[in-house]
Amino acid sequence: MQGQRIDVASEKPYPVFLGVTLENLGEYLATRIGMGEHLLVVTHPNIAELYLDSLKKGLPSFRVDTLIVPQGEEEKSLERISELTSAAIAYGADRKTVVLALGGGVIGDLAGFFASMFMRGMRYVQIPTTLLAMVDSSIGGKVAVNHPAGKNLLGDFYPPLAVWTDFSTLETLPWEEMLNGLAETVKHAVIADEELLSFVERHAQDIKARKPELYKELASRSSAVKVKLVSEDETEQGKRMFLNFGHSFGHALEAEMAYQGITHGQGVSIGMVAATHLAQERGLMSNAEVQRLINLLKSFGLPVSIKGKNPQTLIDLMGADKKNYQGQKVLVLPKGIGQAIVVRDAKDEEIMRAWKKVIK
Amino acid sequence: MQGQRIDVASEKPYPVFLGVTLENLGEYLATRIGMGEHLLVVTHPNIAELYLDSLKKGLPSFRVDTLIVPQGEEEKSLERISELTSAAIAYGADRKTVVLALGGGVIGDLAGFFASMFMRGMRYVQIPTTLLAMVDSSIGGKVAVNHPAGKNLLGDFYPPLAVWTDFSTLETLPWEEMLNGLAETVKHAVIADEELLSFVERHAQDIKARKPELYKELASRSSAVKVKLVSEDETEQGKRMFLNFGHSFGHALEAEMAYQGITHGQGVSIGMVAATHLAQERGLMSNAEVQRLINLLKSFGLPVSIKGKNPQTLIDLMGADKKNYQGQKVLVLPKGIGQAIVVRDAKDEEIMRAWKKVIK
Repeated sequence: MQGQRIDVASEKPYPVFLGVTLENLGEYLATRIGMGEHLLVVTHPNIAELYLDSLKKGLPSFRVDTLIVPQGEEEKSLERISELTSAAIAYGADRKTVVLALGGGVIGDLAGFFASMFMRGMRYVQIPTTLLAMVDSSIGGKVAVNHPAGKNLLGDFYPPLAVWTDFSTLETLPWEEMLNGLAETVKHAVIADEELLSFVERHAQDIKARKPELYKELASRSSAVKVKLVSEDETEQGKRMFLNFGHSFGHALEAEMAYQGITHGQGVSIGMVAATHLAQERGLMSNAEVQRLINLLKSFGLPVSIKGKNPQTLIDLMGADKKNYQGQKVLVLPKGIGQAIVVRDAKDEEIMRAWKKVIK
Repeated sequence: MQGQRIDVASEKPYPVFLGVTLENLGEYLATRIGMGEHLLVVTHPNIAELYLDSLKKGLPSFRVDTLIVPQGEEEKSLERISELTSAAIAYGADRKTVVLALGGGVIGDLAGFFASMFMRGMRYVQIPTTLLAMVDSSIGGKVAVNHPAGKNLLGDFYPPLAVWTDFSTLETLPWEEMLNGLAETVKHAVIADEELLSFVERHAQDIKARKPELYKELASRSSAVKVKLVSEDETEQGKRMFLNFGHSFGHALEAEMAYQGITHGQGVSIGMVAATHLAQERGLMSNAEVQRLINLLKSFGLPVSIKGKNPQTLIDLMGADKKNYQGQKVLVLPKGIGQAIVVRDAKDEEIMRAWKKVIK
């Protein structure tokens, strides 16, 4: 088996395999679970068309069923969990069944949360097929569905059996999807890895030209940041919070637009800029550092501002963030490039000023 | 603080307090969580009317909100979880909020599962007000909701912060509800505590006369069996399975009747008799032991047979049990009085014969 292995320290530690192939998953699984076990692939229609055959080719010694979930963030719902439950029962799934979450963040979050609760918990493997899922959502065991009252409002910390990353699935990924992963990679760089930021700046042109070799290094470095922060703090009491940089602002923006006409990457991009302005006002970032972030995001075509939003509405939406504590908004601010801090004393006035910097 | 404390060994150990008062919970909570924290009581209308004031009297130093859930097993649903989520957000709940599950098994299972997933996990306290919840469902951290495809099909192992048992709430409990707890107590006795069975036999008249002192001892002894089995096997890989005695049969019966016209205690009672007949056929129980169980159940007015059921339908329903493995039904059989075994090789023919013994 080729590829790289990083282990995530966790209450239940698990390995992240980078640069492996879909076809080889079966070989690995045979070392972890019994032969002949029941596998339930949860995936999207287009991913199934592109990659299901490759995946299944490596699984001749297992009983494999597939559940196809329509594309879209709105599928991350309790209603879809209920439908997956009916389908799983119809396929004879039991608590020994292993779920294979083949897809991006939506599939990983949905299938993982489903696995966490079906018969009080099945095992599952994350098989991310988007850059976002590879560097971010597949690592850390956070699974969830959305609720009308908030994104990812219902979920669990539920570590997978393993994360299995085949970079070749990136070849068919639309550029817009790639941008979601790049936004998170820039986030990782800003909060914890100045060298990664330099790497991304240096190779911005090759990244846009989509050179496969580059993505392997980019994804590996970016994943490593996530693994490190998650390993140090699985249940998000401390350092893992840093990963929320740009997200309190970004989620509010996504929520205000009802997740239409804005991608997660775009929300995070604008959110990072807003948080960085707030950090600058507090003396945590220099003007040059703020500009460095803005220039990099712009070079990929990620937005750094948005038109015609009401900042008060966005502040109200930030009030529903599950990181908040006793009504106080909890924010992550960068401290220069490569470090971050959590602040619990941000006043609505300064959050307002930060929003105004990114609303044109 | 009066009362008895038993600690449950668990990944996250927690105490079970027996014989304490609702009014004293606040005093204890103040030692576990910060003053001024947000508490969310989840309860039924009638329990609220009877006991909410007593509970709140002890909580002046906390911010307390109450969510009232209608009575009924059908409230254990993902739909109700979704409604609780909206209500909790409206009350400003966050991940530091502590849920107080004040009620019987339905409230404990529903509120506990809600706590397990809201913002990926809040803390919660089990405050059982029925004998069934006191001796069984409040202990062990198993929480769940039902699904059209099966009872308790979606859930989690999610230990509470503590279990807080005030026996005085039993005084208002209808006899039919008491019987649910008695059925589980007989179960505990048969699988693990012959002395408890003798105790129940000896005091059957006083139990029926509802002498409060007796319930304290009964509940304490019965809870102790549950604590012991759960402590030895939190995630139900081994001995905890014994607690399923009577339940594979009983759940099938409850499911066949769509949970109408049969209580859980009645289902378990008939289920235990069926399983015991199967055990007798395998030479695990003597005829006298079978009769001893039947006589005790009958003395309380618990049913030991049922009319006009189709055994094949019931066997099919047993096929959906989440304890099953690779299509094979997993059953718990008593081995004399005070011991049990798990069998994974039961044939449908012998299960059919066991059903026929209890179908008149």
